Parts: sequence; C-alpha cells; structure tokens
Amino acid sequence: MKKKILLVGASGTLGKAVAAHLRQRHEVITASRSDAAHPVDLGDEQSVSALLQAVGPLDAIVSTTGNVHFGPLTQMTAAQFNQGLQDKLLGQVRLALLGQHHLNEGGSITLTTGILTEQPIAQGANATAVNAAVEGFVRAAALELPRGLRINVVSPSVLVEALDAYGDFFPGFEPVSAARAALAYQRSIDGIANGQVFKVW
Amino acid sequence: MKKKILLVGASGTLGKAVAAHLRQRHEVITASRSDAAHPVDLGDEQSVSALLQAVGPLDAIVSTTGNVHFGPLTQMTAAQFNQGLQDKLLGQVRLALLGQHHLNEGGSITLTTGILTEQPIAQGANATAVNAAVEGFVRAAALELPRGLRINVVSPSVLVEALDAYGDFFPGFEPVSAARAALAYQRSIDGIANGQVFKVW
Ligand SMILES: NC(=O)c1ccc[n+]([C@@H]2O[C@H](COP(=O)([O-])OP(=O)(O)OC[C@H]3O[C@@H](n4cnc5c(N)ncnc54)[C@H](OP(=O)(O)O)[C@@H]3O)[C@@H](O)[C@H]2O)c1
Ligand SMILES: NC(=O)c1ccc[n+]([C@@H]2O[C@H](COP(=O)([O-])OP(=O)(O)OC[C@H]3O[C@@H](n4cnc5c(N)ncnc54)[C@H](OP(=O)(O)O)[C@@H]3O)[C@@H](O)[C@H]2O)c1
Repeated sequence: MKKKILLVGASGTLGKAVAAHLRQRHEVITASRSDAAHPVDLGDEQSVSALLQAVGPLDAIVSTTGNVHFGPLTQMTAAQFNQGLQDKLLGQVRLALLGQHHLNEGGSITLTTGILTEQPIAQGANATAVNAAVEGFVRAAALELPRGLRINVVSPSVLVEALDAYGDFFPGFEPVSAARAALAYQRSIDGIANGQVFKVW
Repeated sequence: MKKKILLVGASGTLGKAVAAHLRQRHEVITASRSDAAHPVDLGDEQSVSALLQAVGPLDAIVSTTGNVHFGPLTQMTAAQFNQGLQDKLLGQVRLALLGQHHLNEGGSITLTTGILTEQPIAQGANATAVNAAVEGFVRAAALELPRGLRINVVSPSVLVEALDAYGDFFPGFEPVSAARAALAYQRSIDGIANGQVFKVW
C-alpha cells in the first residue's frame, strides 16, 4: 500500500537518503525550517501544529533531525546541556505528541537517535543523554499509543557522508552509509515493530 | 574514612532513609528547597552555586530528588514533557556539572532514577525518558570525569513508603524499602563503581 509520509529533516545528510529510499514506494512530504513548501521548526509548537493541519491525515511521520551540545564535561554548563534537551529531544517528542493525532489507524512514528546512546565518546555526554531519553520515550509511548499506532527509533552509527565533519569524534567507529540507515526507516514504517530501536551499526 | 557528603533531597521519602544510613559512617550535609541551614533549588543555577560555595570541598554529592510529569500519552503536551526535563533531568545534571568542581580527588556523585527507565507504566512516558536520560548522562560522564572522580545512579523500584501515594500506578511491582535503596547509595560512595546503574528491585 502506498503511504503518505511526512519527513521532517528531509534536506539533511541522513534525511536526503531517507527521502530517496521512501519515495520508491510512498508519497513523501518533505519538511524542515528552510523547506519552501512545508517550513517547520520542531522547536515551535505552533509551527508544528500548523504543518500537521496543512498536510492532513498521514500514514507515517518521520524525523531525521536534532542538534545536541558537544563539549568537554568539565566545562559543560546546564544551559548548554539544555540546548540538546530542547532541540533533538523535545523537538522530536513534540512532533510525536502532536503528530499522533494526525495519523491514520495503524500509522507509525519514527524518530532518530544514534550510536552514542550506548557507546559514549569524549564531549558527548549531552548526546548520550538526549539519545537515551528519545529511546526511553519511544519504549514507553509504544505501550500507550491507541488505534494500532506504532513508534520506533533508528539509531545509526556515524554516517560515511558525515565523516569529513565528525570523523575525528568517532575514532575507530565503523561508519555506515546514509542509504543503509534509510532501510531501517522503511522497516519501521512498513513492518509491524513497535517500541523498537533499530540499530544501524 | 569518614567522608563529607552533600545530600540534596534529604527530607524526602527516599532521602530520609539515605541520610539515616549514610550518617552511620559519614558527615552528611542535608539540603533541599525548604532546608533551614542549606536551602537549594536545583532548578536555579545561582542557588546551586551558592550552596556549593557555602559547604566547601566535598567527598560525595548525592541527589534523591526530581519530579516528572505523569499523564496519558494521548493528552500529553510538549510543555508538560519539558517539566520533567527541567526538574528531575536538568536539575540533577546541573548539580553534577557544578558539583564536579567542588569534589575532592576520588570523590563521587550519585543521582537517582527509578525502575521506570526499563519497565514503563501507563502515563509514565516522561518518567521513562527522563530516567533514561539521567542514566545516559551518567554512562557518558563517568568516562570523562578527571581526578578519579566517579558518578553513578541508583534506580529503585517503587518504595514501600510511597505505596499509599503511588501504588496504583505500579500494579504487581514488588516494592522495596527506602532503607534497602539507601544501601546502594553507600555502595556508590564507598565502592569503586563508575558509570553504573544500581538497580534496587
Ligand atoms: N550525521 C551523522 O553521522 C549521524 C549519525 C547518527 C545519527 N545522526 C542523527 O541524525 C539526525 C540528522 O543528522 P544529519 O547529520 O542528517 O543532520 P543535518 O545534515 O544537519 O540535517 C538536519 C536536518 O534537519 C532540519 N532541521 C534542523 N533543525 C530543525 C528544526 N528545528 N525543525 C525542523 N527541521 C530542522 C535541517 O533543515 P533546515 O536547516 O532547513 O531546518 C535538515 O533537513 C540528527 O539527530 C543526528 O544526531 C546523524
Ligand atoms: N518514592 C518512590 O517510590 C520512588 C521510587 C523510585 C524512584 N524514586 C525517585 O526518588 C527521588 C525522590 O523521590 P521521593 O519519593 O523521595 O520524593 P519526595 O518525598 O517528594 O522528596 C523530594 C525531596 O527533594 C527535595 N526537592 C524537591 N524539589 C527540589 C528542588 N527543585 N531542589 C532541591 N530539592 C528539591 C524535597 O524537599 P523540598 O520540598 O524542601 O525541596 C525533598 O527533600 C525522585 O527522583 C523519584 O522519582 C522514588
């Protein structure tokens, strides 16, 4: 069945590959802050509500976005730590909380974390905490969603496409291609999994 | 060796038992918003800084505090979800981030989560996310702390002493006494564990 999918973060390194893969079978509505047709800021409640109203009922909602604070623990402040809470964590949770009411029966939500949940790196305490929280939210939310709705999370290792930018932070980590990570989003959308973390590493 | 310990949340259901147990061997400085000698609000950066300045160098910092939002997922808002992020998550992280600079070599930080990290209950999506984030923070921070500093977390099941208030939320869960949970704080402080979750259930 061809599904109607909202993909927030579609213009990003990961999002581009997810969009390309999902478009082979489904209708994909792309969105992000700078998207011409569907601008949205996950940090802004009204912005997310307006987008969901505008696009109408959906079969799947996907997020491939979220920033965290990177920096040495010994210099980290609570204000810096809160940046990741507000952006990658609360932004994705906001999309899920508002989006649940715009999904057709049996629809799905798929969020994004990363390998740092389980395998910390230097300067990554905020990333590990934020990822763990998103995965915790998904674990609990999966058990409460009504109408056959499902929620999962994809946790990629560092992407091949991002090695130039972030490679030094991930010494010896095996990178994965964004195209390989994209498969996991399809598994979440077209499979029956609920409350699962798809680890791509 | 007798240690100088700061215990934030010492007047609570859990905190009272932790204070009583730790006092058998150590000097315990109790603190909370309504503590007469050492008032502190973990939500307020200046308040935490002032307390740490006032009490001087410490061998251990313990938190037995933190509120989260409980409510049905289908009615949850991002603003409600953020309450738990700001209180139990960022409050404890703030204490750790500021506190690290006031610990003697080999000192420890011990935070508190709960069984909901791993075993979600209805209306508990915020609790599971917040607890998971605290445990993620501890997992990563443990690897970055200098000077032999350590950080751990204690995750109790529902307390016997709290069954009247919360029992209906935890059907069939085996409660533990606050006194039993208090042992885990001592393990964290007097042992060598680092980055560990002490599950008391
Ligand atoms: N890159 C990696 O190696 C890697 C590995 C594992 C996990 N991840 C995770 O995957 C996610 C995406 O990473 P990426 O490298 O693809 O990031 P990216 O290239 O920076 O792309 C981010 C995407 O999100 C959009 N966006 C940013 N902030 C937004 C907001 N507030 N509201 C709505 N859209 C927003 C951006 O477009 P606009 O600027 O137009 O808003 C863009 O489409 C992140 O959560 C990251 O932690 C990445
Ligand atoms: N009770 C349980 O069954 C149970 C089970 C597992 C885990 N836990 C966790 O254990 C922790 C304590 O639970 P509890 O039942 O003992 O709570 P509680 O009885 O409500 O006690 C909370 C303590 O923290 C202090 N406090 C509250 N907000 C504060 C703030 N912003 N800054 C500084 N101190 C603050 C309170 O004193 P003031 O009001 O004077 O500030 C009090 O000392 C929580 O994280 C809870 O999730 C509890």
